[in-house]
Amino acid sequence: MLFQQTWQLKTIASIRSCYKEKFGIPRQANLVSEAKAQLHFLPDYQQTGIVRALEDFSHLWLSFIFHETAEKGWHPTVRPPRLGGNQRVGVFASRSTFRPNPLGLSVVRLERVETQGAASILHLSGCDLLDGTPIVDIKPYLAYADAISNAQSAYAQEKPAYRVVRFSEQAQTECLLHEQRLTAMGESVNLSLLIEQILQQDPKPAYHKPPSKTVAKEATISPRRYAMRLFDLDIVWYDQATYLWVATLVLRQD
Amino acid sequence: MLFQQTWQLKTIASIRSCYKEKFGIPRQANLVSEAKAQLHFLPDYQQTGIVRALEDFSHLWLSFIFHETAEKGWHPTVRPPRLGGNQRVGVFASRSTFRPNPLGLSVVRLERVETQGAASILHLSGCDLLDGTPIVDIKPYLAYADAISNAQSAYAQEKPAYRVVRFSEQAQTECLLHEQRLTAMGESVNLSLLIEQILQQDPKPAYHKPPSKTVAKEATISPRRYAMRLFDLDIVWYDQATYLWVATLVLRQD
Repeated sequence: MLFQQTWQLKTIASIRSCYKEKFGIPRQANLVSEAKAQLHFLPDYQQTGIVRALEDFSHLWLSFIFHETAEKGWHPTVRPPRLGGNQRVGVFASRSTFRPNPLGLSVVRLERVETQGAASILHLSGCDLLDGTPIVDIKPYLAYADAISNAQSAYAQEKPAYRVVRFSEQAQTECLLHEQRLTAMGESVNLSLLIEQILQQDPKPAYHKPPSKTVAKEATISPRRYAMRLFDLDIVWYDQATYLWVATLVLRQD
Repeated sequence: MLFQQTWQLKTIASIRSCYKEKFGIPRQANLVSEAKAQLHFLPDYQQTGIVRALEDFSHLWLSFIFHETAEKGWHPTVRPPRLGGNQRVGVFASRSTFRPNPLGLSVVRLERVETQGAASILHLSGCDLLDGTPIVDIKPYLAYADAISNAQSAYAQEKPAYRVVRFSEQAQTECLLHEQRLTAMGESVNLSLLIEQILQQDPKPAYHKPPSKTVAKEATISPRRYAMRLFDLDIVWYDQATYLWVATLVLRQD
């Protein structure tokens, strides 16, 4: 057998989203419905008709490039967070970003299609893509073929359990203020709901997860501080063992 | 915004399947369960551990290249067979093979993983891939995230209706004989079931579908002959308006 060994893919579109860094992004699409995003086509694909009838589909598959990690290589085995980060499975038995080809696959909800002359903008929700992610393909979700509800999914059979999320009074106030500011800038978001939905998934690296009994006992250990970036904000939170605690929202200076 | 415009993907594996040409391949994966296939890794990916724990997943996503049509270009709109081939939708509202990037996506059932030293072979069923198809990624199917059973899928909301398939006596005999021959060659297949499952999907080009009433009336019009290749056979069949009729199986000389 002979193979053409490499294939050239072109970026056809790019994502604008609230996720400005990898940390905090849910591990699968569709878990954080409040995560809105826009898909903007590159000039070559700003053509009338290219998305005709797309608005009749509720969900889309996006094939994209893990552009931030594409150069970092890969290993034959990885430690998926669902296994606590200390058990190895083959790279192809995972959806790790570090893979032989840096291809990602996400199912997202299509909210609406906006037309600006020959250019279209797709408004999406439940999106788990970093701001600036290059899109290489868009396909409609076909429930009759794609929805295999009885599939066996090994270590990822069930949805991850939700963590309880609590906000400090300061964080509550800041959510309202920054939501108003972001709305004035054209972003439509329920900021506290977005933060809650993200933290429910517990985005901490799996190897940071302490045996919760130990932590509860040793009250002298101060909880670890985490910061994740959403829009132009650093969201600062702590793992308090029985819940995650959102302390403050800090406007970034860069 | 700046974009890296192109991305290099490497072929990681290749498919061996009964489908030796595009005609006859079902329009989505998982419709023809009898279609078995094997996935063989290229030498760079014959590494111990690369598919560890994969056998605990019942279904996989394969990202592949439409290698036979990759050079043929694309149009902003296409005519999906589900709309009778005479209504146009945007290329991104379809799963047409002719797209800006020749990327395909299929969900297949993983029957078992065979290990040969450091090399693994994945045994698949419900596969809709042409023999020799280059694979660029394999991901586990995660039902909790991927199975959106209530998704709205526009013109492809329901499974396509099944056609009735009948075999001539000659074709029935030939099925048994060729099945024995193929089995002796190491192929495990129920040949008549495979042919029936494929033809139930009515693989004819949509624009060949005649208004059935007209055909039924004009009995003088002889039905159109079709031949599709499976393994080393040409399967010859006719559309008899109310059913599809398998006439004969011809061993190819090439």
